[in-house]
Amino acid sequence: MNAEIIAVGSELLLGQIANTNAKYLSEQLSFLGINVFYHSVVGDNEDRLTNVLRQAAERSDLLLLTGGLGPTKDDLTKETVSKLLGMKLIYDQQTEERILAFFKQRNRKMTENNRKQALVLEGAKIFPNDHGLACGMARETDGSMIVLLPGPPSELIPMAENYCFPYLKGMISDQSHIESRVLRFFDIGESQLADRIDDLLEAQSNPTIAPLASGGEVTLRLTVKGKDKQRNNEMLDSVQKKILARLEDYFIGTGQQTLMEKLAERLMEHGKTISSAESLTGGLFAAELTAQPGASSIFPGGFVSYGDEWKHEQLHIPAELLREHGAVSHACAREMAVQAMMSAKADYGIGFTGVAGPEPLEGKAPGLVYIGVSSAGGTDSFEVRLAGSRATIRERTVKYGAYYLLHKIRKEIEKGG
Amino acid sequence: MNAEIIAVGSELLLGQIANTNAKYLSEQLSFLGINVFYHSVVGDNEDRLTNVLRQAAERSDLLLLTGGLGPTKDDLTKETVSKLLGMKLIYDQQTEERILAFFKQRNRKMTENNRKQALVLEGAKIFPNDHGLACGMARETDGSMIVLLPGPPSELIPMAENYCFPYLKGMISDQSHIESRVLRFFDIGESQLADRIDDLLEAQSNPTIAPLASGGEVTLRLTVKGKDKQRNNEMLDSVQKKILARLEDYFIGTGQQTLMEKLAERLMEHGKTISSAESLTGGLFAAELTAQPGASSIFPGGFVSYGDEWKHEQLHIPAELLREHGAVSHACAREMAVQAMMSAKADYGIGFTGVAGPEPLEGKAPGLVYIGVSSAGGTDSFEVRLAGSRATIRERTVKYGAYYLLHKIRKEIEKGG
Repeated sequence: MNAEIIAVGSELLLGQIANTNAKYLSEQLSFLGINVFYHSVVGDNEDRLTNVLRQAAERSDLLLLTGGLGPTKDDLTKETVSKLLGMKLIYDQQTEERILAFFKQRNRKMTENNRKQALVLEGAKIFPNDHGLACGMARETDGSMIVLLPGPPSELIPMAENYCFPYLKGMISDQSHIESRVLRFFDIGESQLADRIDDLLEAQSNPTIAPLASGGEVTLRLTVKGKDKQRNNEMLDSVQKKILARLEDYFIGTGQQTLMEKLAERLMEHGKTISSAESLTGGLFAAELTAQPGASSIFPGGFVSYGDEWKHEQLHIPAELLREHGAVSHACAREMAVQAMMSAKADYGIGFTGVAGPEPLEGKAPGLVYIGVSSAGGTDSFEVRLAGSRATIRERTVKYGAYYLLHKIRKEIEKGG
Repeated sequence: MNAEIIAVGSELLLGQIANTNAKYLSEQLSFLGINVFYHSVVGDNEDRLTNVLRQAAERSDLLLLTGGLGPTKDDLTKETVSKLLGMKLIYDQQTEERILAFFKQRNRKMTENNRKQALVLEGAKIFPNDHGLACGMARETDGSMIVLLPGPPSELIPMAENYCFPYLKGMISDQSHIESRVLRFFDIGESQLADRIDDLLEAQSNPTIAPLASGGEVTLRLTVKGKDKQRNNEMLDSVQKKILARLEDYFIGTGQQTLMEKLAERLMEHGKTISSAESLTGGLFAAELTAQPGASSIFPGGFVSYGDEWKHEQLHIPAELLREHGAVSHACAREMAVQAMMSAKADYGIGFTGVAGPEPLEGKAPGLVYIGVSSAGGTDSFEVRLAGSRATIRERTVKYGAYYLLHKIRKEIEKGG
């Protein structure tokens, strides 16, 4: 199956945004074994879109269009496709009800142009939009298929994942299965990791092993192709085992689960709670932990102890500790963790202090970070030296915090320490 | 002059990278008054590239190709263009010398495929590569022009800026300028906004008015084309004035500045401080505010008062208030704002409470949010009803918080209230 992706939207041609949808869809389609041979971008213009569609239909079996499904006059994807392929547009009742409910809930009046978002190609499979109003759809036509998805990535990605890809998977006639598995590692660089499994990377064919570094983590994607699903999984298991024999210390899990999701899961599993005191991260750890549904059972609350006065007055960090060691120190990170834990009567406490930059602090360079982790079993602290922008340093710091907590939980609870 | 951008590279079709070159070039070309009507991406494949080029030459005067100028076998942009247009490839002496010097300096032997990077279309204007080996070029052909640029952004951007754009500028016979301006709005939907300026959108031609919704904001991009820069700006001013006459309440500014950046800027400007107490947002407001460099001058610290016990014990929210009104209430949001402000001895306080979901809380549905905003001048609270995922609800809540604070600052300080 040969696909091409057509993005509709003048904002792309004006360079206001990059076509990240095409990147995302291409990557995901490749996992489904679908080849993407072209991307195109065209503006909100009927003639030009018609020409692009006509040509795409000649050379590809699967056309994925993104954008132009919104309520305004320049959203004309559906209208153009409908004219070109001679298919009627009809109102999808479920989508219409959703839109009505949306406006009712907000006490706002639904304008007529909003109703347009419920128009669909007759005979199409409808993809609900769980994060917006415009539904997506797939419509077969003369042995090929056209798929329409909304432009905003916050709507497109969940729709693609939950409705579109499962539907496409079912349509693919190729009987060989592709299975893939992602192994995630932390606290090790990509080249260092590759070096340790150099012979495995050299010898790879099926499964393939693809390393990728991103956001301070390194992932290995193992991909296997074969007719027998069970055999595929056995092959993945075998390679995973070989890899972990060398890299177990850095392994943080499989799949898409983040360090923070894993931390929340472990705390919930063991019925434990945690509180935080954050200086350089400014609340980012708490924000990411409470992003997990059900976080109230593991997180009573935390402190954003940004200034020194606040650290002293609200968090009770002794003034002489701050004078003697400075806020950017092992001692302060440990005390922050302990005070957070005690104030909140939590099982664990974590403290973050350091220099996020761009300016130095207490004569210390950006990237120097101390993390304290405490429990009834004792308090540890770690020094980490990070590079990058202020945002990168803060994000990495939070990941290291979750990583150290997971180690502590494993040591103290899971290994019966 | 109508342009199109053709990126050559299988890595784009595999979704390994996004086509940020097209975004960059489009934006820059629009500043030169060159309309970009299409982007295409095609793999390292001679037949498919030939077809894409043939079609592009039919519909555009200026073809910008990126990528495929490197030393390996799958770099075939120059070879394909040369065949299609019947132009010879010759070695460019200066580029050849550069490549030789590069290898000599590193004590490495230059392989034959490296020399390929000095091949250029006969008669082309050469663009030196100050950050890599492959040179770029522009070649006129039958009244239109083809431009070849390297794929890596670290090479493409400086080459475009220092050599390619100045060259194109000199070639453009049309002396008209394009100016554009982005107006940002919040707390109003795209369709509702479009509805209010329907007649302006209908009548638009120069300037054009393009609405775009993203992340809870709606932007209007005004774009004007004309020979006289000053006249262009006057036309933009005039349309902006007409739009704001109807939408001033929702207007948050021009350009790319986010609500949080604007809030930090205003607080710094006026030498004011703020503290936060966050329930459903779990630290996200503090994290985003402290993401701004220099935040320590405006943010002494804050509370992540997630659980009710924490709200009471650490933030001193009266137990009877929580019993009577519940945590998800106007009263609690106001008290959180006041307590945060007082504890931190700050000029402003903000409190966030509500239901992030997916589960209801206190019998209240996800998306119901209360925000309290306090200062010495008084305390206000707002009820907001949001839709979407847990993450969306939290992010929008933080934006609303910044939005209400900006209103309060404007009312109390900037308008001398």
